[in-house]
Amino acid sequence: MGHGQQTGRAMDIKAYLTEKRALVDSFLSSYFDGGLVPAHLNEAMTYSLFAGGKRLRPILALASHEACGGTAEDILPQAASLEFIHTYSLIHDDLPAMDNDDLRRGKPTNHKVFGEGIAVLAGDALLTEAFYLLATKSRRSSLAAHRSVLRIIRETALAAGAHGMVGGQAEDVRSENTALDSDNLAFIHAHKTGALITVSVRMGAILAGSGKKNLSALTQYGENIGLAFQIIDDILDIQGDSRELGKETGSDERKKKTTYPGLYGIEQSRRKAGELVENAVRALESLPKRAEPLREIAPYILRRRN
Amino acid sequence: MGHGQQTGRAMDIKAYLTEKRALVDSFLSSYFDGGLVPAHLNEAMTYSLFAGGKRLRPILALASHEACGGTAEDILPQAASLEFIHTYSLIHDDLPAMDNDDLRRGKPTNHKVFGEGIAVLAGDALLTEAFYLLATKSRRSSLAAHRSVLRIIRETALAAGAHGMVGGQAEDVRSENTALDSDNLAFIHAHKTGALITVSVRMGAILAGSGKKNLSALTQYGENIGLAFQIIDDILDIQGDSRELGKETGSDERKKKTTYPGLYGIEQSRRKAGELVENAVRALESLPKRAEPLREIAPYILRRRN
Repeated sequence: MGHGQQTGRAMDIKAYLTEKRALVDSFLSSYFDGGLVPAHLNEAMTYSLFAGGKRLRPILALASHEACGGTAEDILPQAASLEFIHTYSLIHDDLPAMDNDDLRRGKPTNHKVFGEGIAVLAGDALLTEAFYLLATKSRRSSLAAHRSVLRIIRETALAAGAHGMVGGQAEDVRSENTALDSDNLAFIHAHKTGALITVSVRMGAILAGSGKKNLSALTQYGENIGLAFQIIDDILDIQGDSRELGKETGSDERKKKTTYPGLYGIEQSRRKAGELVENAVRALESLPKRAEPLREIAPYILRRRN
Repeated sequence: MGHGQQTGRAMDIKAYLTEKRALVDSFLSSYFDGGLVPAHLNEAMTYSLFAGGKRLRPILALASHEACGGTAEDILPQAASLEFIHTYSLIHDDLPAMDNDDLRRGKPTNHKVFGEGIAVLAGDALLTEAFYLLATKSRRSSLAAHRSVLRIIRETALAAGAHGMVGGQAEDVRSENTALDSDNLAFIHAHKTGALITVSVRMGAILAGSGKKNLSALTQYGENIGLAFQIIDDILDIQGDSRELGKETGSDERKKKTTYPGLYGIEQSRRKAGELVENAVRALESLPKRAEPLREIAPYILRRRN
């Protein structure tokens, strides 16, 4: 017999994703129960936050926390903050001055409904609120727990800001209508989508007090699935079903964006995504059975249709 | 003899402001020495960050920290974060979809130089970086110190986000071209400018481990100078010198914005600002001599010309 985790029947990853998504959604809903916020701003924030997101980043944080021995419920505020950040980035990316998209997840984009000014502010508010959530009072009152929270705030800020996601988007904006080489494209992918996905996985581990070895394995996992995710995104923009995607396909080509399949072809891109997912799963070899959901999420990314 | 702080020759507040501003500026400059950030994004961020701001909010945090027995140099990252947040808010407020301003501090606004897309991203990056700075590793390694840092992150997020500054700006955007009553105007002022100024003062105290009594006195001080600051801002938009201000005057009237002098007249607005400054100074009565800079900054706000 090999490793424990390779025996027994396969776990039901769909049920796991559904359960964790419900956990995240219920946290997000209750968060907006109160509200001293101006009503129209609140409406613009929740419009995009509850537009049917898959909650991939929070789920990765929860799964990673469980893989390292933690309890998902303990880090819901921090995991949810990742969805605030992801949502803000979509609202701002869709603006006319950036990607100028009218449709997202089958609904008119935020600025189409609320106007550009409020869309900018709704994004700003979601980003700011994310850091409130990250700094939520910990149940564990130890110095180590507080240190971990401060560390994930710094890491999330780096992953989301100029050194990460915003930096990637700035390169993307600058290079629209320009043919990119593979290095430029790798920079944009690693920063625009990869950084936040990687920090999602790291967050769960750090908040569980994980050591360097696990953290390094999970970082490798995150980097690999982050790139796989983006490659599939690019492929879906060419081959996907616009109804399932909830937005028009072919937008990268119309905007003359350099993409993975554009540089390497669909065939090779699919192969590359498959390899990345294998690498991701291999990176988790030293982790125990409870890392099984992470192992199953990786190939799930290849099969996604939206 | 009365309180110690009321005797002796008056302190040189100009020298104090110059010294503290230099401290903040030198921290900000060195912060941008490195840089893995895409060059054009870095340029857009620093363009606005080094456009000649008075660094009022960081200085308030430093002065409040000193008033509570702390050392200014110990909280430079956290104090500087306030300037990142203030600068991001100016960049986004100036956008065509919001106030549509072409000139700020005598220079073309960020989007006029870098385009709207990069201006949105430069603001996003500054806001995100602010939270990195807030979570900077503390020199003090106690649990109490870590708790204080997490607390100021939460308070700053609340003051800057939907419950504070962004909420105020959202109301402002919504009510352009609409006549407001005094309650609406008070809401906008308290949120759009008041909240961040108040949290600047509180931050210094909280990071010094101040007790409830001082914190409550400093909060009152912050709220009063925050409103005084905004009233003077409105008056300068009518009576100021556009060269000294670095932007055109009369913009509130052109945008049909309800302002304090618009509702109450210039005379009564000046009187109100004077009263607020008196209230602010009175709130500090129980604080020791080392709160002198805060006492002097309050009337300084009345005399400012830009």
